[in-house]
Amino acid sequence: MLASARAEFAARGYDRASIRGIARGAGVDPALVHHYFGTKEQVFEAAIEKAFAPILHVPDQVAAVWPDGAGEHMARFIFGLWEDPETREPVLAVVRSAVNNETAAAAFRRMLTRHMLTRLAGQLAAPDAEVRVQLAIAQLVGVGLLRYVIKFEPLASEDVEDLIARLAPVVQHHLTEAPRPVDSDTPPGSWL
Amino acid sequence: MLASARAEFAARGYDRASIRGIARGAGVDPALVHHYFGTKEQVFEAAIEKAFAPILHVPDQVAAVWPDGAGEHMARFIFGLWEDPETREPVLAVVRSAVNNETAAAAFRRMLTRHMLTRLAGQLAAPDAEVRVQLAIAQLVGVGLLRYVIKFEPLASEDVEDLIARLAPVVQHHLTEAPRPVDSDTPPGSWL
Repeated sequence: MLASARAEFAARGYDRASIRGIARGAGVDPALVHHYFGTKEQVFEAAIEKAFAPILHVPDQVAAVWPDGAGEHMARFIFGLWEDPETREPVLAVVRSAVNNETAAAAFRRMLTRHMLTRLAGQLAAPDAEVRVQLAIAQLVGVGLLRYVIKFEPLASEDVEDLIARLAPVVQHHLTEAPRPVDSDTPPGSWL
Repeated sequence: MLASARAEFAARGYDRASIRGIARGAGVDPALVHHYFGTKEQVFEAAIEKAFAPILHVPDQVAAVWPDGAGEHMARFIFGLWEDPETREPVLAVVRSAVNNETAAAAFRRMLTRHMLTRLAGQLAAPDAEVRVQLAIAQLVGVGLLRYVIKFEPLASEDVEDLIARLAPVVQHHLTEAPRPVDSDTPPGSWL
């Protein structure tokens, strides 16, 4: 039923997906989907928890390589989700749904906050830890969007390892470097 | 008609938007919309060119503050689009449509490539200029998505000037710093 739910959300988006369509795809009665999961929102939450299951391990993995390896590990994790055919479609389904629908956005926000943001921010021990983690994730989400969804070239054909090498220091910077004020008297390069 | 088109694309997304709905919103006959713009794809292109009109000036403005002010200028421009009530809805319409539909994604890609990416990349004079510009834009697009669309907190309530100060050096780094290899023997902070 969750596989059918992810296919339905990916193909139709949250707004147009229906319990009826999910039941049809799974070859079961809609009442059974209601019985196991409840509302469409609850089916969606269950489907995205499953799609993002590998995320559960990220905070511990990042803690193990903290601080030097944090940026690279996070970059590698996000590319792993998109490059693996098993997780790519469900991730795309979640992104599409969250961009289009408030309820789906809230479910995505809760899932990411609970399983990753809060625990990563705890690692930072800085008053602005949550903003830092969110800016780091924003860099990786943005690259995922431009490369895998909108398909900008040459980004879409660029080697994954090359992109990880370019992004790791930036993600690392968000997580571990103190922010500097914007000051155009400072020569370029000394900002970071 | 373009205002009605943007409202229709924002409310219904590219897939479900129709020439008929756009004509109804503008109080004109559908034949008139066809006459002025052609297909739905062509209406969409015209609507996004209008929504992103300020983008036409960005490459020249960035060239004027090159290289030190480039990161700050680009960050300020993107936040300007989202913070201005006049441009926020059309930008949201374009993002939603591009994420959900291949045709809309291609139109968005062409618009951004023609008006910004190619000209900014020309400024860099580096063999990997296009990838660099796209990674810089990915950072800003990702922040826009998390702050204005998915509405992660505290990112959504964070002061704009604080975010610009945090993002300018990262955008600048993508544009003007040579990429370093990922090397966990290097102490943190010396990567950038």
